[in-house]
Amino acid sequence: MSEVRNAFYAQSGGVTAVINASACGVIQTARQNPDKIGNVFAGRNGIIGALTEDLIDTSQESDEAIAALRHTPSGAFGSCRYKLKGLEENKAEYERLIEVFKAHNIGYFFYSGGGDSADTCHKISQLSETMGYPIQAVHVPKTVDNDLPITDNCPGFGSVAKYIAVSTREASFDVASMSLTSTKVFVIEVMGRHAGWIAAAGGLAASEDGDIPVVILFPEIEFDKDKFLDRVKANVEKFGYCSVVVSEGAKWPDGKFLAEQGTRDAFGHAQLGGAAPVVANMVKDALGYKYHWAVADYLQRAARHIASKTDVDQAYALGKAAVEFCLAGENAIMPTIVRKSDQPYVWEVGKASLSDVANVEKFMPRDFITEDGFGITVACRRYLAPLIQGEDYPPYESGMPQYVRLKNIAVEKKLKTTFEI
Amino acid sequence: MSEVRNAFYAQSGGVTAVINASACGVIQTARQNPDKIGNVFAGRNGIIGALTEDLIDTSQESDEAIAALRHTPSGAFGSCRYKLKGLEENKAEYERLIEVFKAHNIGYFFYSGGGDSADTCHKISQLSETMGYPIQAVHVPKTVDNDLPITDNCPGFGSVAKYIAVSTREASFDVASMSLTSTKVFVIEVMGRHAGWIAAAGGLAASEDGDIPVVILFPEIEFDKDKFLDRVKANVEKFGYCSVVVSEGAKWPDGKFLAEQGTRDAFGHAQLGGAAPVVANMVKDALGYKYHWAVADYLQRAARHIASKTDVDQAYALGKAAVEFCLAGENAIMPTIVRKSDQPYVWEVGKASLSDVANVEKFMPRDFITEDGFGITVACRRYLAPLIQGEDYPPYESGMPQYVRLKNIAVEKKLKTTFEI
Repeated sequence: MSEVRNAFYAQSGGVTAVINASACGVIQTARQNPDKIGNVFAGRNGIIGALTEDLIDTSQESDEAIAALRHTPSGAFGSCRYKLKGLEENKAEYERLIEVFKAHNIGYFFYSGGGDSADTCHKISQLSETMGYPIQAVHVPKTVDNDLPITDNCPGFGSVAKYIAVSTREASFDVASMSLTSTKVFVIEVMGRHAGWIAAAGGLAASEDGDIPVVILFPEIEFDKDKFLDRVKANVEKFGYCSVVVSEGAKWPDGKFLAEQGTRDAFGHAQLGGAAPVVANMVKDALGYKYHWAVADYLQRAARHIASKTDVDQAYALGKAAVEFCLAGENAIMPTIVRKSDQPYVWEVGKASLSDVANVEKFMPRDFITEDGFGITVACRRYLAPLIQGEDYPPYESGMPQYVRLKNIAVEKKLKTTFEI
Repeated sequence: MSEVRNAFYAQSGGVTAVINASACGVIQTARQNPDKIGNVFAGRNGIIGALTEDLIDTSQESDEAIAALRHTPSGAFGSCRYKLKGLEENKAEYERLIEVFKAHNIGYFFYSGGGDSADTCHKISQLSETMGYPIQAVHVPKTVDNDLPITDNCPGFGSVAKYIAVSTREASFDVASMSLTSTKVFVIEVMGRHAGWIAAAGGLAASEDGDIPVVILFPEIEFDKDKFLDRVKANVEKFGYCSVVVSEGAKWPDGKFLAEQGTRDAFGHAQLGGAAPVVANMVKDALGYKYHWAVADYLQRAARHIASKTDVDQAYALGKAAVEFCLAGENAIMPTIVRKSDQPYVWEVGKASLSDVANVEKFMPRDFITEDGFGITVACRRYLAPLIQGEDYPPYESGMPQYVRLKNIAVEKKLKTTFEI
């Protein structure tokens, strides 16, 4: 009864420190089920690989190489920013996908990504119904932004959170040392254009008793310049220094990003990027404090060297669960993390219907942010704390982490046709 | 014959991930010699603590707390940016120091710092001769910039180098994944206003065979915009992406920093800081590539979580050696790292006369930089590689590194006089 069919796996959107751990979970689990899954073909650069019949033959990778994906950041098969249009708008895309899937006997579709990718995955999951092509599609959640609904948290987030919490603590120790005669304010800019989950992790730099003064600027809270400056001033007067964690998505009351403060380069071009220097200059202008600022950018999401063990374990588990769900006959779902208890932290794998996941963003609940808008509450801390737990160091050689680079050998094309992206 | 006298220890200038490891070496070694060294008084905020008689009683810290300094970044006693003037210019400062040293029976002076601090330490070492106050002064080298002469390398540098090498490798993996449809160029800005040692460490992100395209902009090499853009373009065409490591000290041929590119904020103020966004925008304007940029700032020098074991060991060893040299009767010296062999890496402790160290900067030798000015040579790689070797992880609790915060209890003042800084 169980016909052997091939699987397609691809990575989508911004990559993370642990998206390859999910790939590892998918491929290892598929390899353990050769009676049902033939080969795993990876899309080179996400869904684009499927559209252009640019498939990677993962069977050419050794077991050791696949195992090493677990400790390798980034997207080993290449990612893409590409969202399938609706079936009505661009039927040709779907016809092409079916053509490629058919040519390579692909019956399972696994897609690692965030909200947009869940939408793509959902559309694929409907192909049996809409286009008569039998396929099962399961989405593997991945996003540093932690903004997917239903799942308690998203793989990728825990490691960024750990990186930001650790880095903010370290830099706060630094500025504390310098503050008498030099830098008094340190500003770090973090990712999260819409949701403040990553910014919130900066709050973990301090312990619950507030030993380190951290002021957080969330995208969910309208920026109030006077209140902010008052807070920084109060901290400097009390502690001698202040750390500020600003989300790239922090906004003025009129909805404009802080980062778009009208800064112009020598040629008069509006210069984008950099909420941190804007905030730092604001502090200097109003309060006269010497500052330093950092923009973590890709460093935060690529920082496999300080990944959260919880995060790595969950990323792997959801990749594995995706395959197991498929083998159990499921379609149009996403495995989720279900929190059973905060302390001790207990979680298990659940599932969500993709129709409930696609295109829904989860923001920080208001009661995770202190009333003044500048900090995290005990409830937030209780939520975040388990996600950064445990270290999962990659192997090192000559002082450098040994990240795997796959051979990524292309599957021979079977179609004469090409497809323009 | 051996009278018991107290020691003064202080930290100066920008702090590092391992300056406290040197403090640990000083204090532990002093504690092992109670027949010669009474107490170690730490200056609160460097030499300012001595001038204001604001001394910290390190005997109030437990052995465990002192041991934990070895894995704690930043300056545990506070640092300062303050350089003693010459004896002729400000004799009052020296008279004050002697007054404080005398009041607390201080006969040993240990100062952790870079070039300026070596100068301060040198001046103190001459007090016996110039002012008739018997004291021995030993400088403990510390600077992320790696620009002190004579010593093969400076504690503090190896850990920053490791951080930059690891981070650049991780971010390069990230941008490689994104490059087909999104970011093609990643720019990271690193410290080093005068010397390009830290920037050079970015070259270690790639292995010797150049698996990762990294373009480095050194302060030692005049910036050539056209040549730079050509190089970025060639890399993107060959690899699909390019990483750029820009030193904060990178300069135009006219000597102006790249970071001072005439950027103005909304109020027309010249905006400082940020060679990375300047370079990134330059790439975008000329080549149209989508970019991301990061400014590591304090994160790089505070990153104890990814410190180099070699660096930690050396920082500790030089703190220990400073005390041992003093007990052996030395004055006006700095313990150094002497490299005996590259591979296997063998080093030992040597010493340099402070008169040869103070106010001398060591730049990258030209033969450490490739002829085109954008990379590191095999000789440079051979020099750098051992310095990032080994990991020395701090202990973690609940997912966070456990850095010690000392009690820093003040020594009772003995003087009625105060001193204005």
